[in-house]
Amino acid sequence: MYQVGFDVGGTNLKVGAVDDNMQIAASRYAAFPKGETYETIAALMAEQVKELAKELSIPVTDFKSIGIATAGSIDAGRTVIIHAHNLGFHNVPMVDEMHRHFPEIPVYLANDADAAALAELHAGAFRGRKTAVLLTLGTGVGGGIILGGKMFMGGMGHGNELGHMIVQHGGPICTCGNRGCIESLCTATWLIQQGRKAIVEHPISLIHEKAEGDMDKVTAKIVIDSAKEGDAIALDIFNTYVDSLSSAITSVIALLDPEVVALGGGVSLAGEFLFEPVRELVKKKSFFKIYHEVVPAQLGNTAGIIGAALLAKNEEL
Amino acid sequence: MYQVGFDVGGTNLKVGAVDDNMQIAASRYAAFPKGETYETIAALMAEQVKELAKELSIPVTDFKSIGIATAGSIDAGRTVIIHAHNLGFHNVPMVDEMHRHFPEIPVYLANDADAAALAELHAGAFRGRKTAVLLTLGTGVGGGIILGGKMFMGGMGHGNELGHMIVQHGGPICTCGNRGCIESLCTATWLIQQGRKAIVEHPISLIHEKAEGDMDKVTAKIVIDSAKEGDAIALDIFNTYVDSLSSAITSVIALLDPEVVALGGGVSLAGEFLFEPVRELVKKKSFFKIYHEVVPAQLGNTAGIIGAALLAKNEEL
Repeated sequence: MYQVGFDVGGTNLKVGAVDDNMQIAASRYAAFPKGETYETIAALMAEQVKELAKELSIPVTDFKSIGIATAGSIDAGRTVIIHAHNLGFHNVPMVDEMHRHFPEIPVYLANDADAAALAELHAGAFRGRKTAVLLTLGTGVGGGIILGGKMFMGGMGHGNELGHMIVQHGGPICTCGNRGCIESLCTATWLIQQGRKAIVEHPISLIHEKAEGDMDKVTAKIVIDSAKEGDAIALDIFNTYVDSLSSAITSVIALLDPEVVALGGGVSLAGEFLFEPVRELVKKKSFFKIYHEVVPAQLGNTAGIIGAALLAKNEEL
Repeated sequence: MYQVGFDVGGTNLKVGAVDDNMQIAASRYAAFPKGETYETIAALMAEQVKELAKELSIPVTDFKSIGIATAGSIDAGRTVIIHAHNLGFHNVPMVDEMHRHFPEIPVYLANDADAAALAELHAGAFRGRKTAVLLTLGTGVGGGIILGGKMFMGGMGHGNELGHMIVQHGGPICTCGNRGCIESLCTATWLIQQGRKAIVEHPISLIHEKAEGDMDKVTAKIVIDSAKEGDAIALDIFNTYVDSLSSAITSVIALLDPEVVALGGGVSLAGEFLFEPVRELVKKKSFFKIYHEVVPAQLGNTAGIIGAALLAKNEEL
């Protein structure tokens, strides 16, 4: 038995047929066709579903469900993508559109960070847990919450906006226009900005060397690697990052008392170099006298596909 | 049918017999006997239960349950008060101790802010709601969370420490030793501190006049009343308070997408003078495009008693 899972992001459109053991039996990756109408994009997605069926030698109607994990926010009824700036989607009735292509298959929609948390619950870092929070540290900060062993989609069904919790009231301006959101401090974007500043201000830093003095070549990885190699400028940046991130995690823990917090996204690939000081600071900052686990997310790039495929299962619980 | 509810705080020890309509049919208020052993205090509480039964002309065993809402933190098994500094309680097995006096009556224990939220759910501002958050703005900041129509006691059962969410990373030092917790910015205590500073720095302010130039006479109410009367110094303080509080509420909303947030505690008595600008700023700061309600808590001083009496009911749900 297979469930189809789509991971729709501003860069890639990914889809997989996921089996009962949460393994991806067949998949397609394509560049996201930005600028096309949603009808055209949905038609392309439908085509991909048919290709997957063909590859697996089954009729399309054997797919038990189609799940779509999307960037951006979705409506409380979970059928419409309200805003996904990276995709150019505004008020897109994605579930209805997909239904038009496959009237016999149930279609589900969720935010991609929520879906990733669901994937971690059934196949990754959250297995056997009832309460858990996933933070994805990438261009932005996404949040997926598991409560009572299920994906928590917000009290009113609007999902969560964990990245826009305010962790530094009066702090730097966020993409949302507000000040001091987690997203203004804990992203790869923040590391890149600081790395660029370092190139201008400190021509002798390792960051400058690795990026060949070119601001456009600065990546979060370069900043992190420079810090790992002991570069003082990079360490300053990295330690500030760790301090902000640990405050953000402390806030989430203070509210939810979760069994585990997992970090995913590009920045989490820094590994124990990141996790060790984050754990130490969270422990120090947390009001609780017990230790709340902070671990790496396990599913990486496939989290969206697997989580989307699991949306049907989440509904049944 | 009556349930007994205790509200155990550092100042008062309150108890009531609550009927099926959530009305307090009989009650006793006493100063909290600070410094006594917990065994002595439990014996005093047991005496109060017997008095209530006598007043109602029923045998004590007719009480269906005894609920205890306490300041401080309780253990995950909800039988032990781990730390309640104001009460001088550390690792106090309150449920067992009360059971010793009334072996036939079920005894329940909860944090007082959690219990207050439960009271609002069944008899106050949260009636008919499934997801709601109560912030009590007093000497400290307490938080009570309703999720799925039940009191949320933390993913691991440790309750929440909403007051120690970090809202101003790097900000003022909190009672917990950390920096920028909600409790370091959104309490009556903060208003009093700022009011005292104003007395020293601005002898012509209304705060100075109302407190007769005496630092010890400054109250949160004096600061708020001075702001209401248009005093510039007091308004500065009050507006800063509103700004911090709105960031704190925005964070909670970003994570939980609750149907309603209620504000209780002394500061909330400022009324619409507080609620109007808070609502406006929360709306401005929230990432969600919909409006999340911010309303006054309704139960005031009786919330603890009623919430404690409802603990048995919460268990049944």
